[in-house]
Amino acid sequence: MTLRLDAAAPDFEQRFVSLLAMKRESSHDVDETVRGIIEDVVARGDEALIDYSKRFDRIDLAQTGIAVSAAEVAAAEARCSREQLAALDLALDRITAFHERQKPEDLRFRDAAGVELGWRWSPLDSVGLYVPGGTAAYPSSVLMNVVPAKVAGVKRIVMVVPTPGGHVEPLVLAAAKRSGIDEIYRVGGAQAVAALAYGTKTIAPVVKIVGPGNAWVAAAKRRVFGQVGIDMIAGPSEVLVLADKTANPDWIAADLLAQAEHDESAQSILITDSAEIADATVAAVERHLATLSRTEIASASWRDYGAVILVKKLSDSLPLADRIAAEHLEIISEDAEELAARVSNAGAIFIGAYTPEAVGDYVGGSNHVLPTARSARFSSGLSVLDFLKRTSILKCDAESLRAIGAAAVTLGDAEGLQAHARSVSIRLNALGA
Amino acid sequence: MTLRLDAAAPDFEQRFVSLLAMKRESSHDVDETVRGIIEDVVARGDEALIDYSKRFDRIDLAQTGIAVSAAEVAAAEARCSREQLAALDLALDRITAFHERQKPEDLRFRDAAGVELGWRWSPLDSVGLYVPGGTAAYPSSVLMNVVPAKVAGVKRIVMVVPTPGGHVEPLVLAAAKRSGIDEIYRVGGAQAVAALAYGTKTIAPVVKIVGPGNAWVAAAKRRVFGQVGIDMIAGPSEVLVLADKTANPDWIAADLLAQAEHDESAQSILITDSAEIADATVAAVERHLATLSRTEIASASWRDYGAVILVKKLSDSLPLADRIAAEHLEIISEDAEELAARVSNAGAIFIGAYTPEAVGDYVGGSNHVLPTARSARFSSGLSVLDFLKRTSILKCDAESLRAIGAAAVTLGDAEGLQAHARSVSIRLNALGA
Repeated sequence: MTLRLDAAAPDFEQRFVSLLAMKRESSHDVDETVRGIIEDVVARGDEALIDYSKRFDRIDLAQTGIAVSAAEVAAAEARCSREQLAALDLALDRITAFHERQKPEDLRFRDAAGVELGWRWSPLDSVGLYVPGGTAAYPSSVLMNVVPAKVAGVKRIVMVVPTPGGHVEPLVLAAAKRSGIDEIYRVGGAQAVAALAYGTKTIAPVVKIVGPGNAWVAAAKRRVFGQVGIDMIAGPSEVLVLADKTANPDWIAADLLAQAEHDESAQSILITDSAEIADATVAAVERHLATLSRTEIASASWRDYGAVILVKKLSDSLPLADRIAAEHLEIISEDAEELAARVSNAGAIFIGAYTPEAVGDYVGGSNHVLPTARSARFSSGLSVLDFLKRTSILKCDAESLRAIGAAAVTLGDAEGLQAHARSVSIRLNALGA
Repeated sequence: MTLRLDAAAPDFEQRFVSLLAMKRESSHDVDETVRGIIEDVVARGDEALIDYSKRFDRIDLAQTGIAVSAAEVAAAEARCSREQLAALDLALDRITAFHERQKPEDLRFRDAAGVELGWRWSPLDSVGLYVPGGTAAYPSSVLMNVVPAKVAGVKRIVMVVPTPGGHVEPLVLAAAKRSGIDEIYRVGGAQAVAALAYGTKTIAPVVKIVGPGNAWVAAAKRRVFGQVGIDMIAGPSEVLVLADKTANPDWIAADLLAQAEHDESAQSILITDSAEIADATVAAVERHLATLSRTEIASASWRDYGAVILVKKLSDSLPLADRIAAEHLEIISEDAEELAARVSNAGAIFIGAYTPEAVGDYVGGSNHVLPTARSARFSSGLSVLDFLKRTSILKCDAESLRAIGAAAVTLGDAEGLQAHARSVSIRLNALGA
């Protein structure tokens, strides 16, 4: 049953700690399997991709080709409704506009000692985007991963997507095309990750792999990390709603269920200072559940991981919110702005009654790839920075080396690194310093 | 023997690929041991720390206390020479001044549709810095890790350092004190990482762990990742020097050895368009080696992993440099600036004859924690950003939700996420939209 907590109860701290400690991910032990698949792809390349796709996706890539052709993509796009494509374009435009503001600036300056310092940002050479297959293939995820890479200036963006039984969502291909991807392969699973990391005859390797995936994909990403860069390993999704008596319980309930319907491991939590809102929201959740297509998933998530917490005043929820460090935080209150300003740990904050989290999933413009499982305590959502690297630049001339070099010699000697010291002193000696 | 390659040779590509593929890290299989240690620290806390320190560091923490007292730190500082402390202070000032420029800006704006968007950066609550023990305890590393955290605004910074036989480098404690750390524990190894991640009675947990360490420390950091954030896992260090005929072979040799002396797995590579410079540098390396204190380590590194590559003209080295993606790149040439501008993959670039890499290790001001093992292809050196997290902010009012909400409903429906669509449409309906 959905947990009900009262912050005034004597056992609250203990029960809240249990809530935080809840393990929501079933840990599949797939690491050995994944290791074998990766080694096989490294050894046999395309042949391995063909074999695994026969086995896991019931599709013969030797027949279809590994690459998805431009004609197929165009045909898929033609099957999407005009309304869908327009919605996709609106999302694409808004996401692009927002991410354009994330481009960092290069720096170069000369300081008082005459030393020139700075840094230069440059785009990654190539990026691979993993898109899950089946019903979890979300066109919005394509946009959220591709746009920051495009804005960063990444030239080559490759998409891999499994096509179980030959099927791929047309809107996913349309999203790829409209966001500028023209290299798509119909492979998935650990084998796709291996191909992106190490390359095959057909698929040239990339330097970073991003995108969500199941336990096999996550394990493969962990394994190839180092060979290539990876984004975060996403855990099950979560929302925390802070609401006062001004909130509409029916709307809160819909927002909680929008999280719960993702996954049985998703988590939806409401903290309110109104017992009426708490009760009315719980009732509204039940009403909504009766008419949702993904009722089973949403019910299980709400039953097993949902929670409603009553506090004396809504500002009492802030320390709890920081400890929960939710991926998504909605604040529906007369004081929403003020409360938002005082939150430290959250992936994204949705302010006010007219900002359901789902707006941010699609068309708000900010990125929906956000830190899960309390990692908002130490990490951030996907951004343009994830597709850039920073090279620092240092330049001394004779004068500035004379100014700061002696201290480097002292520290090199102190650390017992004589060649470090000598590489500086040999120059200072030549300068007669 | 140190590898000599000529880019004009028919087998060059093949030999260059072998050079890139060289495994320089011996892979200790310590993962199971580390798992046991972490579980033990979680279960027994301080008692486990005391036991492991007896065993690994030959020190009884029950006698000395786990925390290093302020009096001990002051006494250590008093044992450092005035010259050393002055060098440390110069480094601290310069590193601070550089990192102050890395603070990112918050953003909040309202777009044409009336949607408010933005983000807010906030410091991590707490950070743990691992400092290796023995001779690898570098005061410069303390500064390079602490300063960006301080500049980011991290309130609680904790240092752990093993003290084998009770010994800790006085200058390390002085560096901690001067950079503003007042919480230091004399524990090391996987047990220290576990204590930082999960906490013990004495050591409160942190949200991110940074700093270099041996195979045990690296394995422990990988294991606790998720529970806390971690920085990169550093591999053996490397330098690539691009030099034309204007360079001084004696200086190049010192720079190559400054890398080689770190570790037998360190790698030093010279690419030059001058056969004379190539030969003279190889000879100068031998001369320097005869008089260095860490000759054995530096000789082994240079012999096993060193390389000298001859190219026709120095600009031919740029594609090779991008493939090597060196942690440190020195460019000593009349065209150094122009060449530097064309490099894409490098942790840091040191421009011109008067910028030995060692200046950057200590007093240049930029960070010396840089991506190793070719990871400069997809990652960057340590910066203030590593100690901040970004929370995105979204706010619609009735009008702006009316403007963009319908597209969110369309995409939610297209993705089969009915509650997503409903959480928006329920509001649009109430607005009569």
